[in-house]
Amino acid sequence: MTHLQILKSPVELSLSDYAMSGEPIVNQIRLLRDVSGIFINQEALSDLNPETPVYSVQAWLPVQEGTPGGLFFGVSTIMSGKVDNEYFMTKGHFHAKSDRAEFYWGVKGKGMLILMDRDRNTWAEEVYPGSLHYIAGEIAHRLANTGNENLVVGACWPSDAGHDYEQIASSGFSARLLEIDGKPQLFETES
Amino acid sequence: MTHLQILKSPVELSLSDYAMSGEPIVNQIRLLRDVSGIFINQEALSDLNPETPVYSVQAWLPVQEGTPGGLFFGVSTIMSGKVDNEYFMTKGHFHAKSDRAEFYWGVKGKGMLILMDRDRNTWAEEVYPGSLHYIAGEIAHRLANTGNENLVVGACWPSDAGHDYEQIASSGFSARLLEIDGKPQLFETES
Repeated sequence: MTHLQILKSPVELSLSDYAMSGEPIVNQIRLLRDVSGIFINQEALSDLNPETPVYSVQAWLPVQEGTPGGLFFGVSTIMSGKVDNEYFMTKGHFHAKSDRAEFYWGVKGKGMLILMDRDRNTWAEEVYPGSLHYIAGEIAHRLANTGNENLVVGACWPSDAGHDYEQIASSGFSARLLEIDGKPQLFETES
Repeated sequence: MTHLQILKSPVELSLSDYAMSGEPIVNQIRLLRDVSGIFINQEALSDLNPETPVYSVQAWLPVQEGTPGGLFFGVSTIMSGKVDNEYFMTKGHFHAKSDRAEFYWGVKGKGMLILMDRDRNTWAEEVYPGSLHYIAGEIAHRLANTGNENLVVGACWPSDAGHDYEQIASSGFSARLLEIDGKPQLFETES
């Protein structure tokens, strides 16, 4: 009988903080200056260091973006912070291939997953260690950190989903997550 | 300004053992009598209780199976045990829509992910807490528990992947994972 190979996968996760390691991992960081346009109070921004990290993403993209049938796996870390009373958050996006879904799951910290459908109805789901979120196709999604430590969220999405950041960059979400009376509240900004 | 809704997702994971809870969760358990055909030593099977649990699966299937663009999320638990010197393992399958990929990640325990391509080349990857595995399309996959405690593995896969169990049920994998000299070794069974 022939012995066959027992290998190690090229990627590991630290289960405590979901840090990803291994040669194929790609890393991306977004500073305040990269995402300044997403916050409502532009005046308050000028008091903050534009080099402040707002969020980072690690991902394993084992196939080329756009490949049908493949999957990507990533970890988003949103730092704790606010611009005036608006929490640090991700830019948010629809998927370019817009029926593609995504799973998010909370690993550390606390926050909100802000969701908006194509009719611009916005709502949110609480993110906390162990919360599991199904983001259906056609739903824009954004993460905000409402706590005092990093918010860490695992993610898995189709390799042909792509990202449509444009629509959110130009029209935003129809609601803002603000800290009012010490707690996060979601306010509609369109009537 | 109008207050918008902040909801909880209907599903939670226990991050320590990945137990899934919530109304939408489906549970499946496979007993030795359900999977007896997958083990090589059928004589050794007769000494074991056919009601012995071999593995269980919990899953959240937020859309109908077959829906394009959606995703499913699940947790597989393979119990510790052997039939003669062959480890407890899952049935294994190709995806019915065979280019569909899947991610597995080790959460607890130790084991092997046994992989086989369409040309019946078989190999394995070590599964341990934090190991992350990309299972490309066209690759059959099976989990075996090589340790003394439950092996727990998270999984995310496309909602239109489906399962083709038939090919493995009729022809098996081209290799067997056996305990030899106290450690798992993968032996080719076809020349």
